[in-house]
Amino acid sequence: MGGDHGPRITLPACCRFLEQHPEARLIMVGLPQSMKNFNHARAAVVSASEVVTMDDPLEVALRRKKNSSMRVAINQVKEGAAQAVVSAGNTGALMAISRYVLKTLDGIDRPAIAGQIPNAKGLGTTVLDMGANVDCTAEHLVQFAVMGSALVSVLSGNENPTVGLLNIGEEAIKGNEVIKKTGELLRIASKTGDLNFYGNVEGNDIFKGTTDIVVCDGFVGNVALKASEGLAGMIVDFLKREFSRNIFTKMSAFLAYPVISALKKRMDHRRYNGGALLGLRGLVFKSHGSADELAFGFALARAYDAARNDLLGQVRVRIARAAPLLVSADQKQLSQAAVLA
Amino acid sequence: MGGDHGPRITLPACCRFLEQHPEARLIMVGLPQSMKNFNHARAAVVSASEVVTMDDPLEVALRRKKNSSMRVAINQVKEGAAQAVVSAGNTGALMAISRYVLKTLDGIDRPAIAGQIPNAKGLGTTVLDMGANVDCTAEHLVQFAVMGSALVSVLSGNENPTVGLLNIGEEAIKGNEVIKKTGELLRIASKTGDLNFYGNVEGNDIFKGTTDIVVCDGFVGNVALKASEGLAGMIVDFLKREFSRNIFTKMSAFLAYPVISALKKRMDHRRYNGGALLGLRGLVFKSHGSADELAFGFALARAYDAARNDLLGQVRVRIARAAPLLVSADQKQLSQAAVLA
Repeated sequence: MGGDHGPRITLPACCRFLEQHPEARLIMVGLPQSMKNFNHARAAVVSASEVVTMDDPLEVALRRKKNSSMRVAINQVKEGAAQAVVSAGNTGALMAISRYVLKTLDGIDRPAIAGQIPNAKGLGTTVLDMGANVDCTAEHLVQFAVMGSALVSVLSGNENPTVGLLNIGEEAIKGNEVIKKTGELLRIASKTGDLNFYGNVEGNDIFKGTTDIVVCDGFVGNVALKASEGLAGMIVDFLKREFSRNIFTKMSAFLAYPVISALKKRMDHRRYNGGALLGLRGLVFKSHGSADELAFGFALARAYDAARNDLLGQVRVRIARAAPLLVSADQKQLSQAAVLA
Repeated sequence: MGGDHGPRITLPACCRFLEQHPEARLIMVGLPQSMKNFNHARAAVVSASEVVTMDDPLEVALRRKKNSSMRVAINQVKEGAAQAVVSAGNTGALMAISRYVLKTLDGIDRPAIAGQIPNAKGLGTTVLDMGANVDCTAEHLVQFAVMGSALVSVLSGNENPTVGLLNIGEEAIKGNEVIKKTGELLRIASKTGDLNFYGNVEGNDIFKGTTDIVVCDGFVGNVALKASEGLAGMIVDFLKREFSRNIFTKMSAFLAYPVISALKKRMDHRRYNGGALLGLRGLVFKSHGSADELAFGFALARAYDAARNDLLGQVRVRIARAAPLLVSADQKQLSQAAVLA
C-alpha cells in the first residue's frame, strides 16, 4: 500500500517478480478493495483494515493502527508465514513496528538500515546506517559493521568483505570521540579475525568502492546519500538542458546517446533499491518511497535473495562469532548506572 | 609554501592575480630560496625560516615552529600589514595557529570553515562548517549561521541570504537533539529579523541551491563535500572511459564536446576554491591543498574581495545585532559548572 504511488506500482511489480522467479510465492497484504483485481496462482491475499500514511507519527502507526497493512505484513514474518517483508511505506513506522513486533537479535541494541550506493567498480558499496539512528555509540557502530559484513557475504558471496569507518580523514587520530573509539574496537575485531577492517575511509571512498562496506551513523549516512542523489540529479538535468539547447547539440546528443545512456544506467538508483533493516529477528526490506515498478522489483528480488540464502541465520552466526566484541551499549549504560547507584 | 605543489603553483598564481587586480598588493611569506626569482612592484617578500608540513601534528605546528611561513603570514594580519591571509597548507594547523594568534571574535566560541559548493542555479551554496569542528552544540551552529550570513551578504551583495539547517528530513521533529535545538534557536532568530532562516534542508538541497547557506557540523559537512567530490570524479572518469571506447564513441565525444565541457566547467571545484575561516579577528582563507594555478587564483580573489568589502566589519555588525541569540556555549558550560559546584 505504501510509497508515493501505492498499489498502482507495487502490484505490477509483484506480477513481474512472480514471472521472473518461478519458485517464489507472495503474500499480498493491503486493503481488500486495492487488491481485488490481483490474481496469481502463487500469490495469497491477506487483508488489512487500515494503512500507515507517510505523515503518521510513530505513536499513531505503532499504538493506534494495530491492523495496518504494515503491521499485518510484519506479523506474517513473525508467525513464519513469510520469510521476508518488503514495504515502500513510512520508514520510521516500518522500523518502529518491526522492532516492536519482531524484536532485535541477541547482541544487537538497534537495527540499522543498510543500503547500496553505486561505485566506480560497477558494484554497490553497502552503507549503514542510512538513517534509522541519528545518535550512535561506538558499540552500535561495531554492531553495524558485523551485520553489514553478514549481509554482503550472503548477498554477494564475498566471504570476507572489507569494512571502512566513515571519517573526515584517513588517520586514526581524526574524527570525534565516538569515531575514534569505534576505530579502536574495529581494529581489535580485525586482529581476532572476526571482521575485515580496512580503516578509516572518507566520503569519496563510498564512490571509489574502496571498501565493500562503509559504517557510519544514520545522520551522516543519510546526508551523504541525499547529497549524492542531489548532485547526480543536478548533472542529469544539466546534460538534458545543454543537449537540447539547439539543433547541433541535439544531434550530438543523438550520437552520444549510448554513452549517456550507459552513464544513466550506472547511476540508476533504482537498480540499488531495497534497504535491509538489519538486527531484527526477521527479514524486513525497505523500498524507496518514490520507487517505480522497476525499482520496487529490485527491492523484491533483494528480499527474495536474502531469504533464500538465509541472511538471518548468517547474521546470527556472525554475531555469535563476534559476541565478545559486542558489548551491549545499553547494558553498559545499565551497569554504569548500577555502579553509580 | 603549502599545498601539494607549493611555490611552483602559488607563485605563478600570485603573478597572474597581481596582473588582474591592479590595485592589489601582496606580501609573499616563505623560505627565501623558494622566492628568490619572484619580483613584482606590488609584491613584498617576507622571509620565514621553516614550513609547516601537511603531516605536522598540531602540537608541532603550534608550539615548535614559531617561525613557520604560516605563522609569519598570520602575524602580518595581526599586525595590520595585511588585510587577509591565504594558505594552501595543513588545514588543522592553519586553524589552530589562526585561532592562537588572532583570537576569536566576541560572541564566537569556535571558528568555522565556510566553503562553496556549485549548485543547480549556477551559483555556489555556502556550506559551513566544512571540517574544523567535529562536535558542535546548537549554540555553535547558530553562530555559524550568523557568520555565514555575513559572508554571503558581503561577497554576493545579497543583503538577506537564506539559511538552511542540514538535517535528515524537512520536518522540525527530525534529527538528533543538537539539530532540533538548533532549529528552535534559528526559528527564534528568524522571528526577531536577525537571520533569514528557511528551515531544515536535506543533502540534496545543497545542490539544488534551496538556500544560500547550509549550516552543519564539520563532520557532516566534510563527509557531504567529499562524497560529492567522489561522485563527480566517478562520473567524469566514466564519461572519459566510455567516450574513448571506440572510433564511434570518440567521434560522438568530439561532437558532444561543448556540452561535456560546459558540464566540467559547471562542476569545476577550482572555481569555488577558497574557504573562509570565519569567527577570527582577522581574515584567513584556506585554499584546497591540491589547488592548481587557476584554483589558487580563485582563493586569492576571494580573500581580496572579502578584504575590500570589509567582511570582518560586516561579521562584527551581524554578530552584534544577533548578540542576544549568541549565548556562548562555553560560557553556558561554565555557568552550569558553577551551579553544580
